Amino acid sequence: MKVIWNNQLVEREDVKIDMEDRGYQFADGLYEVIRVYNGVLFTAKQHIERLFTGAKKIDLILPFTREKLIKLLSELIEGNQIETGNIYLQVTRGVSSPRNHAYPETECTSTVFTASTTSVPRNLKMMNDGIKVITLPDMRWLHCDIKSISLLGNIMAKHEAHKKGKDEAILYRDNRVTECSTSNISIIKDNIIYTHPDGNLILPGITKSVLFKVARQAGITVKEETFTLKELKEADEVFASSTTMEAMPVIEIDGELVGGGNCGPVVKLLQSLYVTEIETECGIIS
Amino acid sequence: MKVIWNNQLVEREDVKIDMEDRGYQFADGLYEVIRVYNGVLFTAKQHIERLFTGAKKIDLILPFTREKLIKLLSELIEGNQIETGNIYLQVTRGVSSPRNHAYPETECTSTVFTASTTSVPRNLKMMNDGIKVITLPDMRWLHCDIKSISLLGNIMAKHEAHKKGKDEAILYRDNRVTECSTSNISIIKDNIIYTHPDGNLILPGITKSVLFKVARQAGITVKEETFTLKELKEADEVFASSTTMEAMPVIEIDGELVGGGNCGPVVKLLQSLYVTEIETECGIIS
Repeated sequence: MKVIWNNQLVEREDVKIDMEDRGYQFADGLYEVIRVYNGVLFTAKQHIERLFTGAKKIDLILPFTREKLIKLLSELIEGNQIETGNIYLQVTRGVSSPRNHAYPETECTSTVFTASTTSVPRNLKMMNDGIKVITLPDMRWLHCDIKSISLLGNIMAKHEAHKKGKDEAILYRDNRVTECSTSNISIIKDNIIYTHPDGNLILPGITKSVLFKVARQAGITVKEETFTLKELKEADEVFASSTTMEAMPVIEIDGELVGGGNCGPVVKLLQSLYVTEIETECGIIS
Repeated sequence: MKVIWNNQLVEREDVKIDMEDRGYQFADGLYEVIRVYNGVLFTAKQHIERLFTGAKKIDLILPFTREKLIKLLSELIEGNQIETGNIYLQVTRGVSSPRNHAYPETECTSTVFTASTTSVPRNLKMMNDGIKVITLPDMRWLHCDIKSISLLGNIMAKHEAHKKGKDEAILYRDNRVTECSTSNISIIKDNIIYTHPDGNLILPGITKSVLFKVARQAGITVKEETFTLKELKEADEVFASSTTMEAMPVIEIDGELVGGGNCGPVVKLLQSLYVTEIETECGIIS
């Protein structure tokens, strides 16, 4: 398999990450997951914009322009002949020795950029059947808007869900739902979509923003307002959204069925409108 | 330079970290920094106990017993002929491919353990002159008791301090001081030491616990109670503590001098008592 390592397409086994890469010692880096349909990047510009925004927030100088990154990712897709799949990319502040918490002087660092692909079909069965989730207190930091590799809080929550045989964990702070461990979360009540507003407590999800755009175009009201755990559990429909999940119905929360345990009509509509968006950008998907 | 890589003493340049090491992609790992004086590990048992406690909290199976780890670290000190220096060690949940937030099944993972040394003399000048700090809101997660490599919140705070030409950042939540970006923080008022109690908001510092033990033995009252920003700034003396800083006087906070801008008598006493502890365990230090 080919991967990108510091702006070069190389064989996966040739990549060598240094033990003093600040990504490895301090989680000092950012990442993105971009979906590929028909060999074409979907919403790449939005992902890249978020990466550049995050880099600014942590004073990280990215080793490419937006245009160069698109070119590299396209070469990667071509190199691995990916049809439907994911690109995972991450950038760290690079090697700094001896280890020191403080950021090194800009002129002394060389960021480390890696990107790889996996072939991953759309999970149509799961999108139809829905997922089961638990709720947990949100223990993460207060910069969840930064898509950083500092993810231990997220993976611990995911692990808690898996230990209970569930798919995802919905997180809350002070009784207000924020997002899930690896996705945004929204509810539908009386045909209105509610979701936590963007800010420092959640990731500004790109799939979420596409879904809200098409929802609004379809005449559905979207309110970016917080909702409580009680409102979550009393919603007509609930859905998670992420690059790989698209619009994913949540059919069970803490052991109780949501909306009868089936994907509801609004989520079905959103899924269908999302496919139209994919097809507009990437061509017809089977 | 020699390092330990997966329980073997190897040359630094032979170590190759995989790009899908979960430490690199999810900050899914723990670390410790242990001080060496006269070629002898100081408070190693306490550091190793904290590592094992953290591992339990994140369901990480460590690839060594306590005894084996001590043996490996002693070989490392010997291999690099370290007299006064630091051992940095970290353990991650290892390589998992394809990338997936959920912890892999225990039988599928092999943790990655690395350890290295640096020669670092005691910073006597800084311990005498003190450090200058700023205060910042604590943006970190709610499991600061786990010494994880998920450190972006910490290094961002350190970076803020450095940008302002200062040494460290004191963090606070809801006006209560928690700790610093890389150290614990305590104040002295009317000969009583105050510090944030252990719990999920701070790291249970080992240097701090040694200092409190010797302080109590010397008849000084130590109260593990929170204090406010105002109390911080009105303290008679303030000190940070960490493995590398020992008891470090804070002589300026947000541009205002603490206790006249000099290391005060209680901190001087603590420094001296700490040296006695070092010498009891590691022999006379020059």
